[in-house]
Amino acid sequence: MKLLKDRILKEGIVVDQDIVRVDMFLNHQLDVDLLYQLGRELFDYFSKEKITKILTVEASGIPLACLTALHFGVPVVYAKKGRVRTQEGNTFSSEIFSYTRNETAFISVHQEYLKPQDRVLVIDDFLASGNAVLSLKNLIDQAGAELAGVGIAIEKGFQEGRGRLKALGINLYSLAIIASLEDDQIIFA
Amino acid sequence: MKLLKDRILKEGIVVDQDIVRVDMFLNHQLDVDLLYQLGRELFDYFSKEKITKILTVEASGIPLACLTALHFGVPVVYAKKGRVRTQEGNTFSSEIFSYTRNETAFISVHQEYLKPQDRVLVIDDFLASGNAVLSLKNLIDQAGAELAGVGIAIEKGFQEGRGRLKALGINLYSLAIIASLEDDQIIFA
Repeated sequence: MKLLKDRILKEGIVVDQDIVRVDMFLNHQLDVDLLYQLGRELFDYFSKEKITKILTVEASGIPLACLTALHFGVPVVYAKKGRVRTQEGNTFSSEIFSYTRNETAFISVHQEYLKPQDRVLVIDDFLASGNAVLSLKNLIDQAGAELAGVGIAIEKGFQEGRGRLKALGINLYSLAIIASLEDDQIIFA
Repeated sequence: MKLLKDRILKEGIVVDQDIVRVDMFLNHQLDVDLLYQLGRELFDYFSKEKITKILTVEASGIPLACLTALHFGVPVVYAKKGRVRTQEGNTFSSEIFSYTRNETAFISVHQEYLKPQDRVLVIDDFLASGNAVLSLKNLIDQAGAELAGVGIAIEKGFQEGRGRLKALGINLYSLAIIASLEDDQIIFA
């Protein structure tokens, strides 16, 4: 999607060959008008999938999930990390290893919010190893719901996420795929 | 705001005299159309405040912040909890004690995203002790920016948040104020 690629080229900061900072518009400071337009593009792509729910994981997936859900007219559910006092028991849970944070997080969704009849669109800001998406798929599987698609803002095409998802037959759409961050250059696929 | 109060009465679950679960529409599963309407109400109230930025803290403040920001046409910044590898140094930081989680969290905002010229609207899903808002105010103060207002979905009117904020002269607007949760009854102020 040209709009997103242009923004990444204009403002993205290559930290190293694995990381590009886009937190000035995507996942710390948020350009909500841009996110709304990204959401419309995801809606156009997945509009025939009869999506009933959008699933993401806190915190950085929430903004795009919300602004995508406005187009679909369906609820967002975000998986929570850790356990909180107001949400005991009755949860689907899974683990997710984040290379960015170098830690394993426990994620969970209340069983009331994922049902067997749900057709779920998973949304996230980044796809890299695919660990986050596969952990969310695990929650969907536990619910007996259907993973109808995965919509991503920025995919690190040089990592294994796409291969792992496609091997499972998952319908994946990334708005921008970065082929390489070597030599401080952002190269799209 | 009648729309929100009606929804709380219809779906909210009183857990004990301090906690009402509204995570079926506000902070786990998200009714984004409702949040968009809450955001418009907050826009109507604060529209003359020349807001340049909306500030919240991850994760549960993000949805309402995003859907309010659409009306204002300004960016959202969300304070992050903990430290991550892609966000080293150059941050304003503060601490926040959460009674819900019974833990102290370290929160931070990159210095690039709060500037002295900013007029900041703080948005959160709940106001209880006021600790979260005061911790965000601390970040705003560090930046030399102006706290122009605080917009809250649900205020626990039986806690000290309002008193602490009003004592500082803060312009506070809560869309629903719960006076009591005793005897499993939700009573609004």
